[in-house]
Formats: sequence, structure tokens, C-alpha cells
Amino acid sequence: MYSFNFYMPTKVLFGPGKLNELHSETLPGKKALIVTTGGTSVKKYGYLARVEKELALAGVEHVLFDQIRPNPTNINVMDGAKAVKDNGCDFVLALGGGSVMDCSKCIALMANNPGDIWDYSLSANGGKKAAPNPAIPIICITTSAGTASEVDIASVITNDKTQEKTGIFFLSMFPTISVVDSDLMMSVPPKFTAYQGMDAFFHASETVVNKNVHPMAEMFALKTIEFVAKYLPRAVVDGSDKEARAYMALANTFAGYYMMCTSAHTMEHVMGSFHDNLVHGAGLIEIAHAYYGFFAERKAAEEPMKKMAKAMGIEHPQSGKDFIAALDQLITDVGCANLKMSEEGITREELKLYPAKVHEVLGGDITADPLPLSDADYLEIFENAYC
Amino acid sequence: MYSFNFYMPTKVLFGPGKLNELHSETLPGKKALIVTTGGTSVKKYGYLARVEKELALAGVEHVLFDQIRPNPTNINVMDGAKAVKDNGCDFVLALGGGSVMDCSKCIALMANNPGDIWDYSLSANGGKKAAPNPAIPIICITTSAGTASEVDIASVITNDKTQEKTGIFFLSMFPTISVVDSDLMMSVPPKFTAYQGMDAFFHASETVVNKNVHPMAEMFALKTIEFVAKYLPRAVVDGSDKEARAYMALANTFAGYYMMCTSAHTMEHVMGSFHDNLVHGAGLIEIAHAYYGFFAERKAAEEPMKKMAKAMGIEHPQSGKDFIAALDQLITDVGCANLKMSEEGITREELKLYPAKVHEVLGGDITADPLPLSDADYLEIFENAYC
Repeated sequence: MYSFNFYMPTKVLFGPGKLNELHSETLPGKKALIVTTGGTSVKKYGYLARVEKELALAGVEHVLFDQIRPNPTNINVMDGAKAVKDNGCDFVLALGGGSVMDCSKCIALMANNPGDIWDYSLSANGGKKAAPNPAIPIICITTSAGTASEVDIASVITNDKTQEKTGIFFLSMFPTISVVDSDLMMSVPPKFTAYQGMDAFFHASETVVNKNVHPMAEMFALKTIEFVAKYLPRAVVDGSDKEARAYMALANTFAGYYMMCTSAHTMEHVMGSFHDNLVHGAGLIEIAHAYYGFFAERKAAEEPMKKMAKAMGIEHPQSGKDFIAALDQLITDVGCANLKMSEEGITREELKLYPAKVHEVLGGDITADPLPLSDADYLEIFENAYC
Repeated sequence: MYSFNFYMPTKVLFGPGKLNELHSETLPGKKALIVTTGGTSVKKYGYLARVEKELALAGVEHVLFDQIRPNPTNINVMDGAKAVKDNGCDFVLALGGGSVMDCSKCIALMANNPGDIWDYSLSANGGKKAAPNPAIPIICITTSAGTASEVDIASVITNDKTQEKTGIFFLSMFPTISVVDSDLMMSVPPKFTAYQGMDAFFHASETVVNKNVHPMAEMFALKTIEFVAKYLPRAVVDGSDKEARAYMALANTFAGYYMMCTSAHTMEHVMGSFHDNLVHGAGLIEIAHAYYGFFAERKAAEEPMKKMAKAMGIEHPQSGKDFIAALDQLITDVGCANLKMSEEGITREELKLYPAKVHEVLGGDITADPLPLSDADYLEIFENAYC
């Protein structure tokens, strides 16, 4: 039947304009380190000023730390942790997308723990230690609809020196409060709206086909798929479509409540490990038809795929192939039909190196696909995806 | 669009047999007060022994307090709080249905707060105080599929002296861990299986028609309705149907994640306030056709009702009346078509007293129905329901 847990101690405030309510929550400290990127948009669009106003209304002081890189590093983390201590902050407030939220969680961890963040990494060169102390409290205010970092304990951090990219996870890294306010996502350009939105879609579709799926994860995932299919094309075509943005914000977080990723996420990380600049959502789109098609051909996930097709508006799906057709259409509708692995710098020759790497990089659960995949299967999927 | 919060700090362990995993969780103390009823079933069916074994495996001591009445009272609460203190317990473990869980939450509150539980009641004779201290930690192990008390902060307690029945709510009354294990529900007799399951159904259906519903509440509620329609008739006909029991356990909790009740719950509490022995689920069933029919006649909730009809298996619902037909069929299928208000001791004459009482008793949000209801409307619904 089923067996699963649900644990989500983060209080999530959902809705357009919801940031305006932050000051009326019980905030988890008296002085915040606001962590954000060095980019200009949080300032230009007034998001930072709005956050500062909320803290002021709540009688909370703050210090700004606006130095997070797109792929945050151990140095970012340690600099942030030092800023917490130097300024006597007692909680961290992340304002940004996945990179900022991930880095903030690690800053909160290192603000209260000895040594370097890499002491707590499970990577080959990581110290693999358990953190002796909990992270200080974290508030996440997400400005993108894709990673769902606002409702999990995961951080992906890069080590500048060892070139490793690792996941760091501690239960105390659940945010205390997260704000999912689509008003802060209106300025995301169409291309990134599509990439981030499709990332959320694939978090959900990998969950539905995951052999370990359970009724609660499936419920969240199918609702995500329904929202993405309905609203992402609109949000891409017209970024000022408030309703579409609002439902995409919700889709993103819903997918995050359970993120049961399979080999597809791992395969994209393999591509990324060879090509630093590959955008995660784009890589996922590039392999999607080949990955899901592999199982549709073998009728290995007929029921899950029919459920997904139905969520995407196909009234009477007959087989998994109806999902593949709906997926292709969605990719077209969000303007991503022309994405090509070759244009990312990937060569057909190099694909032969990928299957071995699937067993090395961080990603989804490669034992949870609808059928077990051999290295030959991985190569076949990569080759089918290549153009 | 939408605006809502999600906050559920309770870690919930779902699944048949899931109780067996309790010992591997981090339990919130070293000595538990196990709170349960004076009835025999938790002992006869071995549930208590299983809980005691889990605590022993976790190295946690316990003391048994098996004195909870079906409608728990302030005296039950204070006796339990005294047992916590006298025995040096540091958390409360509730094993039972709604009465046990509700009472346990208040015991946990009073184990750490001065005075009497009624000091913290908002009823006419209640002290209306804020509790100065948090409740001690609570674990809930539910043995019924209906109230969803395992995922909320609410307790309904009766005052023996003032004859008041009140809700007591403090954020610290969220359970730390809850176990939703349908193996503990296999022995519920058919009649109570139906009443409890239909209570879960109405928590969900009132949510879907609630004028304040939002996408997350609707998602949980429609999934509840789908599960109840599919599995409750099976669980009533054959209590040993493990799959049906497991999905009803899930339906119950899903409805509890958001419980946006309307006047229907309040109206049932009015009936209960005149007739102590009326079972809550039975009362809800008795007024259901008249309550939902009122709005279907007026086409006041066509879309929500069509969504519910669809969740109940009607492929192309045309109007709210399709939901009414599906509801009538479900009530028949769970063996409750013959329930009559007159057989509860309710007289047609006394119905005239009910509308005024709607404004006095605790229940759902009487401003959240699909249409505002006047006292004349309440009377019309009660009279239509009467037989």
C-alpha cells in the first residue's frame, strides 16, 4: 500500500503580496543577516527595500551581505558566517533564488559550528562530520519558481579549491519561515522563467514515475504538473501575467514538499559536471523526451504517465505516449523546442563518458526509475537526446 | 488568486505497520505518560502492548493513565496533568481517537502551566488567559479515521460543572510526532467506521465549498473525497480490508491538514448541544443532503460541487446536483441511509430553537458558506433534513 513520512516544520506564507505580512509573524531573532546576490535586480525592483521595511516594522535590525555567486562556494559560506558573528546577528534571511537560499542555509549552519563548511560535506574530500550544533534560524524569501529550496534542508555548494560540488543537509537547516510571493518573481526573464518552471515540472514528473512514489507525493506532483502545464506557457509569453506567476510560484513549492528525483536529475548533473555553464533546467529539457520516451516505449510507466497526461489536460490518455506528446507540446509552448545539447558544447563523442559518471555525481535516486537502467541504457538515452 | 499559510510542524508517520518504526524516531523525552481510554480495546487488540514495546526499544520509561472518557472533561485533564507531575514524566503519548488525543494535548498544556484548564478556555465561563508556558511534548497515535486531531492544535473539552464544551488551542499543542497506522483501526465496528469516515468526508466537502478555500486546501480535500468515496464503503462492509482501512486513515489526516469547516459543522454541534448522545458523524450525515442541496438548488457552488462529484467518480458532472446524487449514494453505500433525526430524540418542534443556537456554539465558520445563511435559511435546512 504505502509507507512514508511527512515532516515540514517550515511555516510557509503563500500568495502574491504575502511578503507584506512578514512583519506580523514571530521572527526568530532580533538582528538579521540579509543574504542576497551581488546582482542588481533585488535592489532595482525594490525587493530588498521591501524586506528591510518588514524587518523595521517588526523591530528587527539587519546587516546586508550581498555577495552570493550564482554557484555559491565554500568561501561565500564562510564569509557569510563571519559576517553573522562580526555583526552579532542571530538569524539569517535569504532573499533570492536557489543559490542564495542554499548558501544561506550553510551560512546559518556555520554561524553556530566550528571549522569549515567542507568538514560537513559528504564529498570525497569532505570531512563527513555531523554538525555538533544546530544552524541558527533561517528565513527564506524566494525570488524564483524552480528549486523549492525554501521547503527543504538541502544546500548545493561548490568547493573552489577541490572543484567538488556537494549537497549539505542537516535537519536544523529547515527554514523557520518561508515566503512564496510571486510579486517578487515578475521580473524573471522569459528564458529563465521557462528553465526554472520546467525544473519544477521535472521534480514532479520524476516523482510520479518514481518506483517509490506514495499517495501524498503523487498528489503534490500531479498538482504541480497541472499548474505548470496550464500556467508556465502564459508566464513565459507574458511575464506580467500575475495569475500565471502566482500559480507557478505555488507549483514550485508543491513540487518541493516531496522531491523524489530519479536518474533524469542525475543525468543532467553529469552533463553539468562537464559543462559548467549549462543551466540545470535547460539540461533537463534537453534529455526529457529521450528519458521519458525510453520508458514509454517499454510501457514501463503507463499508469503514472497517463495520470500526468490527464493532469496536463489530455482527457482520455491511452498510453504513456500521450504524456510524451503533451511534454513535447509543453516544451514547445515554453519556447524551448530549439534547445540542443550540441549548442551547450556537448559533443556526441563525449557522451560515452557519461554513464560511468552517473554513478559518481549527486542527483536523483538512480535506483528509482520505472525500470532499472544499465550503463548501456544511459548511453542510449543520452544518444537519443543528442542533437 | 490566493493567500494562505501552511504550517505543520508535526512529523507524521503514515502507513500500515508504521507504529513499528516509532522507536527509531528521536522521541521528545525520557519518560512518557501514555494516555488512553478506560475502554478495553487498546488492551484487547494489543495496541497498548505494541506502544509499550516501542518505548522500551527506544529506552523510554512510561506510566499508564487510562482514564479518558468519551467526551473528556476538565477533571480528566487536571488528573492527567497531575499524573505527569507526580510521576516525573516529560512528555505525553496519546493512544486513541479524538477524545484521547484532544485530552492529551490539554494534559500536556496543564503539565507545564499554573491553575486549571478552564483558565485557558475562551467559553463564557472560561478564564480566556494566554498560557504562560508551552505544553510539554506530545506524541499522538490515532486509532480512528475521522477527527484528524493528530495534525492540529485543537482540543474539545467539556466542563463537568458549567456544562460548557469548548475548544482550547495553543500553538505548542501541535504534536511532535503523530503515527497514522491503519493496523490500529482494523477493529473499529462498521457503524463507527462509517460515522468517522463521513466526518472526514465532511471536513473535506465543507472545505471545497468554503468561500475562503485556496488551492492547497482544495487539493487535500478533493483527495480526501476521492479516497472516502472509493474506500469507505469497502471498509464498512469488510473491516478487515487492509487497503480500504489504509486509504481511510490517509483520507482522515489529509482532511486535517486544512479543516475549513462551514455552517454544516456548526449546525451539527447545535443538534449535539441538545442531544448529548448524538454521534458527531451521524449528525453530519443527517443534515448533509439538506445542507448541500440548499446550495445546489440555488446553483451557489456549482464548480466546487462538480469538482467533488468528479473526485467521487462521476466523469462528466453537469451541475451541483450530480454531487448531491453521489453524496446520497455514498451515504447509502456506507449503510447510513436510514439515519433519522427523529430517532436521535430530536423533535420537529425543537428545530425552531436551533437557528439562534447556531450563533452560540463552537463549530465551523458560519460566514464561509457558499451563500450567507439567515436564521430562516438555517431553519429551512433543519426542517428539510428532518425525518
